[in-house]
Amino acid sequence: MAIQKATNITWHQGHISKEDREKLLGQKGVTLWFTGLSGSGKSTVAHEVEKIFYERGHASFVLDGDNIRHGLNKDLGFSPEDREENIRRIGEVAHLFTEAGLITLTSFISPYRSDRQKARELANEGDFIEIYVYCPLEECERRDPKGLFKKARAGIIPEFTGISAPYEEPENPEIRLETHKNSVEECAKIVIDYLEKKGII
Amino acid sequence: MAIQKATNITWHQGHISKEDREKLLGQKGVTLWFTGLSGSGKSTVAHEVEKIFYERGHASFVLDGDNIRHGLNKDLGFSPEDREENIRRIGEVAHLFTEAGLITLTSFISPYRSDRQKARELANEGDFIEIYVYCPLEECERRDPKGLFKKARAGIIPEFTGISAPYEEPENPEIRLETHKNSVEECAKIVIDYLEKKGII
Repeated sequence: MAIQKATNITWHQGHISKEDREKLLGQKGVTLWFTGLSGSGKSTVAHEVEKIFYERGHASFVLDGDNIRHGLNKDLGFSPEDREENIRRIGEVAHLFTEAGLITLTSFISPYRSDRQKARELANEGDFIEIYVYCPLEECERRDPKGLFKKARAGIIPEFTGISAPYEEPENPEIRLETHKNSVEECAKIVIDYLEKKGII
Repeated sequence: MAIQKATNITWHQGHISKEDREKLLGQKGVTLWFTGLSGSGKSTVAHEVEKIFYERGHASFVLDGDNIRHGLNKDLGFSPEDREENIRRIGEVAHLFTEAGLITLTSFISPYRSDRQKARELANEGDFIEIYVYCPLEECERRDPKGLFKKARAGIIPEFTGISAPYEEPENPEIRLETHKNSVEECAKIVIDYLEKKGII
């Protein structure tokens, strides 16, 4: 885990609080943390949910695994250390977006339970909603939308989650989706219903 | 500079564009990049501008040097390499916030011209507004709000910008503020006037 390296730094308190921003935007700033295997449908569901937010006038944003790896985290690979640092940075960025009052959707495999726990600990109570996008490995492999499982099986991609690297299932996610049983629209509705019930939107 | 390490990643295109978000929020997503010496007043002016945004109903957020160093960039120190990586990450995060449609204020010394240029290159034309918060070194040192200049002169803090590390002045900033001549409120007004003239708010 990253240790605090910089010293001689002080916290600069702004004038506007998270509550102020939430009032302005008419919503609660939360993180919807989608986790699951490659091919499980994390990004597809997250972007569907984002579309519904937009139609309802909510400010939201998807932090997407692949997209972030082209920018902020382009210096990181897929070793255990790099995966940990990848998720650490995403947790911090999601926290900033959440503090800004946005409904923040993160779509990352995020295979390690401890890394997801650290991301959760950055958030205020109730502001971190873990969404386990469950889909059996065989079905993810059958879908293989990016041809990655095929490459992993052929040994071209090392350290591939589910094949040659571990995925630690969430023990108590706030929401569990099953994309082999429910359509994208049905999964999105489950998320929206949860947020409505909790008074977040 | 960080090189692209991760391979086998693809760009996931969402349904909602930056323009959609700007329409929803009634503003343009831009980055206001405050740069200047420690003690020049970057954060003070940025937070004052943020307050005005809030009062006018605009969604904005300050990414503050010290605050970010407690979280996302807590693994970085003040060596030239770490400073470069610090600003690289901030540039990427500011870009994400800007894509989300927010008016994003960054308050970092960001002493190297090339690093600021890289942050600018991430943005669409017109979305990156460099604000040089000018204040003579002697005046920054006289203010010394955090006692850092004193420590730097005593050699307790090495690599301190303006004393033992370089600051490369912006050559063509969109806005130049002079905090030794103008009050915080006057400086904030200069920024707001610029944004209004450009149709950003």
